[in-house]
Parts: sequence; C-alpha cells; structure tokens
Amino acid sequence: MTPISSPFQTPEQRQADRAAKRDAVLRAAVRMFNEKGFHQTSLDDVAARLGISKPTIYHYLGNKDQVLLECVSRGLGQIIEAAAEARREAGTGADRLAWFLRRYAQINMDDFGRCVIRTGDEALASESQQQFRALKRRIDNALRELIGEAIADGSLAPTDPKLLAFTIAGALNWPARWHDPDGEHAPADLAEYLVTNLARGYLPR
Amino acid sequence: MTPISSPFQTPEQRQADRAAKRDAVLRAAVRMFNEKGFHQTSLDDVAARLGISKPTIYHYLGNKDQVLLECVSRGLGQIIEAAAEARREAGTGADRLAWFLRRYAQINMDDFGRCVIRTGDEALASESQQQFRALKRRIDNALRELIGEAIADGSLAPTDPKLLAFTIAGALNWPARWHDPDGEHAPADLAEYLVTNLARGYLPR
Repeated sequence: MTPISSPFQTPEQRQADRAAKRDAVLRAAVRMFNEKGFHQTSLDDVAARLGISKPTIYHYLGNKDQVLLECVSRGLGQIIEAAAEARREAGTGADRLAWFLRRYAQINMDDFGRCVIRTGDEALASESQQQFRALKRRIDNALRELIGEAIADGSLAPTDPKLLAFTIAGALNWPARWHDPDGEHAPADLAEYLVTNLARGYLPR
Repeated sequence: MTPISSPFQTPEQRQADRAAKRDAVLRAAVRMFNEKGFHQTSLDDVAARLGISKPTIYHYLGNKDQVLLECVSRGLGQIIEAAAEARREAGTGADRLAWFLRRYAQINMDDFGRCVIRTGDEALASESQQQFRALKRRIDNALRELIGEAIADGSLAPTDPKLLAFTIAGALNWPARWHDPDGEHAPADLAEYLVTNLARGYLPR
C-alpha cells in the first residue's frame, strides 16, 4: 500500500516550518538594520520585503526590540561557539588565539556579527540591554582567557590581557563598519591580514 | 574722565557671546548623545539640561540633525588638525605616524571624537551624511598618506596602506565604545599602550 500523503503537518514539520519562518524574518530584518540603521527601519519595512504583515512578525519573533535582541544574540552566539571550538584546537595558546581571532573577524563581517557591532547598547530596551551586555561580557572573558593561557604557556609576550583584548577586538570589530561584502577583499583574506598584523604586535620578539 | 560702561555689547562681544552659547549647547548635546544615544535624546532634553528652550537651540545651531553634524564635524576637525601637525613633526615617517596615532586615539576618547565613532552614517539626514562622509574620507586619506610616507622612507614594513589604515583605525576607534573617562586608564596611557602594541605589528622586524 502506498502511504496516504496527509495535508496536515506532523509536530516535527510544524516546528521546522516555524524555525524556517523565524530565520527568514531575522535574515531580512538584520540586513535592513545593517543597511538603513535600526532606528530608520520599521517592522513594516521588514514585513513588506517578505510580503507578509507586521502581526506575522510579532507572532514569530515579537516586537522590534525583541527582533534586534534575537539578531545580536545570534551573532554573539556564533562567536561564543567559535571560542569553545578554539579551546579544543591543537597547538600553542597563541595558535588557539589566532584560530579564534580569524573566526571572530569573519563573523563580524557576516550579517548577524555585523549587527552586533553596529548596535549600541542604548538602542535596546533596558531588559534586552542587560542580556546583550551579558553575552558581550562572555566574549570579552573568553578572549581574555585565551590571551591569558597563551601568556601562561609562553607563546605570547606578557601584557595586560584586558587591554590587549580591547586592542585586538577593536581592530577586528571595525570591518563591520567599512567592509563591503561585495568589495575587493574576501572576508577570509581580510581576517588573515588583520590577525597576522595584530599577531606581530603581541607575539614574543 | 572714566569711560561710561555701556549696557550694549560691541560686535566683538556679541560674537564671543554667541560662540560661547553655541559651545555650551554643543557640549551638553554631545554628552547626552554619547550617554543615551542620538535617537534616545531629544533637543528638549538638551534644552532642559541647560535651562533654556528648544527654540534657543534652533536659533544657535539649528535642528537635531544639524546639532549632530556640528558635533561630529568638531571631532573630525580635531583629527584633521592633528594630521596636519603630525606632518610638521621631526623624525622618520614612522615617528610622525605614531605621533598622529596617539593624538587620534586620545581625541576618540574625548566628547566630540567619541561622538564621531558612535554615530553611524545612517543617523544623519542625507545631505549631512555626505558632509560627514567627506570629512571621514579626508582622515582616511591622511592616515594612508602618513603610512605611505613611512613605507617610502623605510621606517615601516611594506604593506597595503589602506588595509593597515583600517586595522589601526579599528583598534584606536574602539575605546569610544568601551573606555570610561572616569575609569582606571587615563586616555594618554591607553593611547600609548594601543599605539605601542600596533606599532610592533607594523614596524620592520
């Protein structure tokens, strides 16, 4: 007997369908926030680009503040994951740091990472702001730990981990403001250039 | 005969008075923009802090977009001036570059420089945006020229001046987002740390 194809979705299908719709809304929203700025973009604009209505966005994601929080949380989530992966890499502490920094730079040139950098804390409502700050603190700490470990195993010149973390982060965050995804520099090449130049600064001479 | 003190201002006094009032409005505005974000600050808030009315701000500076343009123009003006001074410094190209970078970093930790970094192009109206971009381009070009001259006189390792300029600018712009003027690091010390670390990356080995 051939199985009867049902017009009703299974719970798994419904869940996958819901996730796909959330993704589509987030991707459209983050691109518009990055292009036009958060304050210059309305959820009506986002809905129009997807050919849906604003209440549909509310249904899948919530209000504009919640949409922005979800966008930056995705970007920060990618970086937190990269830090965890870096910890499992072979080599010296400096090797693991460089591995993380290359990923970090590339994520910042991608949609959600770009949104993290372009979003000032003050754009978010106060509760979302706290979540945003807490995620950013995790990344600051992960970066400082990777630096601390590299100093400890002698693969990095001794320095203040907090200040070095800020120096590196600044250089690797900045492409979110100027790098053109359709421009002459591929994200991987640019990441390599930035990390190589920074590494010459912090590696032992 | 003792001169009769006149209750009427001379044209010079009027001009100085006007400049002092513009300065006070700008200083109050830039601090509020930096603290609360441009979009979260109204000219009513700025006026209230100064104990004046919004029309008084319109009279001295114009609308909110014009106030922001004036704030970022002052910050960028300070950097353009620093670049011109750097050109007149003695020493090698790398010395002049380091001199400029220390000033650049410090300006970015000051009120108007901080505002430049925290302001996305999209926050400004389209005509102001063009002026903002034109000023930023002048600084990009000045930085690339200083780098190019240092490469030419052999005091800097050969590299792509444009990419190196972005790497350096990112690291030196970032304090505008995290440096606390009342915190543990004095701007001059932090600038010194940043420039020293970056310089190790770009100086010939």
